[in-house]
Amino acid sequence: MDDFASSLAETADRVTVALDALLPRADGPEKRLNSAMRYAALGPGKRLRPFLTIECGRLVQADERALLRAACAVECIHAYSLIHDDLPSMDNDDLRRGRPTVHIAYDEATAILAGDALQSQAFEIICDQETCASPSACVDLARRLAQAAGARGMAGGQMLDMAIEEGRDTDIGLITRCQRLKTGALIAFCAEAGAIIVDAEREARTAFEGFAHDLGLCYQIVDDLLDAEGDENLTGKRTHKDDAQGKSTFVTILGVDGAREHARRLADQAKQHLDIFGGQSERLRQCVDYVLDRQS
Amino acid sequence: MDDFASSLAETADRVTVALDALLPRADGPEKRLNSAMRYAALGPGKRLRPFLTIECGRLVQADERALLRAACAVECIHAYSLIHDDLPSMDNDDLRRGRPTVHIAYDEATAILAGDALQSQAFEIICDQETCASPSACVDLARRLAQAAGARGMAGGQMLDMAIEEGRDTDIGLITRCQRLKTGALIAFCAEAGAIIVDAEREARTAFEGFAHDLGLCYQIVDDLLDAEGDENLTGKRTHKDDAQGKSTFVTILGVDGAREHARRLADQAKQHLDIFGGQSERLRQCVDYVLDRQS
Repeated sequence: MDDFASSLAETADRVTVALDALLPRADGPEKRLNSAMRYAALGPGKRLRPFLTIECGRLVQADERALLRAACAVECIHAYSLIHDDLPSMDNDDLRRGRPTVHIAYDEATAILAGDALQSQAFEIICDQETCASPSACVDLARRLAQAAGARGMAGGQMLDMAIEEGRDTDIGLITRCQRLKTGALIAFCAEAGAIIVDAEREARTAFEGFAHDLGLCYQIVDDLLDAEGDENLTGKRTHKDDAQGKSTFVTILGVDGAREHARRLADQAKQHLDIFGGQSERLRQCVDYVLDRQS
Repeated sequence: MDDFASSLAETADRVTVALDALLPRADGPEKRLNSAMRYAALGPGKRLRPFLTIECGRLVQADERALLRAACAVECIHAYSLIHDDLPSMDNDDLRRGRPTVHIAYDEATAILAGDALQSQAFEIICDQETCASPSACVDLARRLAQAAGARGMAGGQMLDMAIEEGRDTDIGLITRCQRLKTGALIAFCAEAGAIIVDAEREARTAFEGFAHDLGLCYQIVDDLLDAEGDENLTGKRTHKDDAQGKSTFVTILGVDGAREHARRLADQAKQHLDIFGGQSERLRQCVDYVLDRQS
């Protein structure tokens, strides 16, 4: 394992251990719900969003414990969104990270509730005095997370994604808007969480904003490329879905080569935003390369 | 209309107007989502939870604008829970408040997303500096709302409710626990929100806690009575469902007379908790009678 991979894996482990302690135990009369929440949130995963949260936060010297809790909250939101996106009435996926999706492993009602409860859990984690020394930073953090998750963020993006899937709308403007909401908003929250915690200066916030914008878009284009060209055994989820559905993506619009070129350009831009942090941002630069070159 | 009914209706109107301004407009590319959120949250409804929030808050002199925003957040959580509870894989209801449920009026995917986005919206509303002058009260409020909504609250209660429905579990202890989580936790939040906002003394908080506990249980028993005996034209939703499913409820366990007697006793107890507030609590006492005698 190279340096970056081991650092990503180490952060993933720390987040999983912390989440394990924060999530309700799978016992008592509601154990089916709690067990489904744990299945979704503690299962395998790159924990890329927690990694971004922690690494960006370190660049502004945010408290490590606060960052870890913010990272756990983000992972709860991400896990909830995957559960709901996989449901039969949404993307209807039965495989996720190489395992049965939650509604397959449990049932549909349990999957809906587990997603709902994971969303609440995220705000419970953020709004704890353990997270931020400053209550006003805590309020900012929770409000930004709510905005990133809601109708003007992730949920709005998933709505748009389904409209695009059904071919109701197809131009590149809408596809970009969809990405910005569906995956971009939460990635932006990750990049900015530490800056919110320490009430960082404008310059750092602007850098994180630009970094998140370019990295998020790059991430989505690579996702589209993996769906078009990826290996199911490596990605741990069904591929060639967009094509089968005739769905417009960055790949169908820009072509494989064009999409790859665009992703590469965005990766370069993302790194440039980190210049103000100098050598300290090395791990985040490696993370950009990882997002660009990933096979899953 | 009697005094209480017009005061309830007046609060309902104020909350609807405030929510209308807080919810995203039904335009732009995500308008289907926003429209479904508005359909669910702005449709007819007693707005009993907002009423409780505002009236209890007035007893501790909480700021009116703060109470109105907390009431709107509670209504978002309540509306989201109704959307998800009505889904085919949950209670499979096609009628709510006399109108088609959200997955019937729109579709299942939109209904799931609208519920998800309404949950985020609740936290977005709470975690705004407009809500509380004190950030630490704001954090407390958001954390308590998250707890009331999540696995140890409403979502856990709905899980338990389904287990009871399937006859997996049936004793009165579990039915009471189910109520306490499914409806009691959010009602308790309503009663205590004002006390959290002003950081009220222990005595007031204990009174609200006891009041909410008894009122919430009373509310659920009346709900069960309405399902057993109510008129579909009055309740605006399907009745006799529990019986058709062979589901254990307070009515099947205590009998109709026993359940009614128990509800009456709880209503009396709920009022006693308000004694420390004297004559100021008159409207809340009327609210207890309303919950006990309601036909819908």
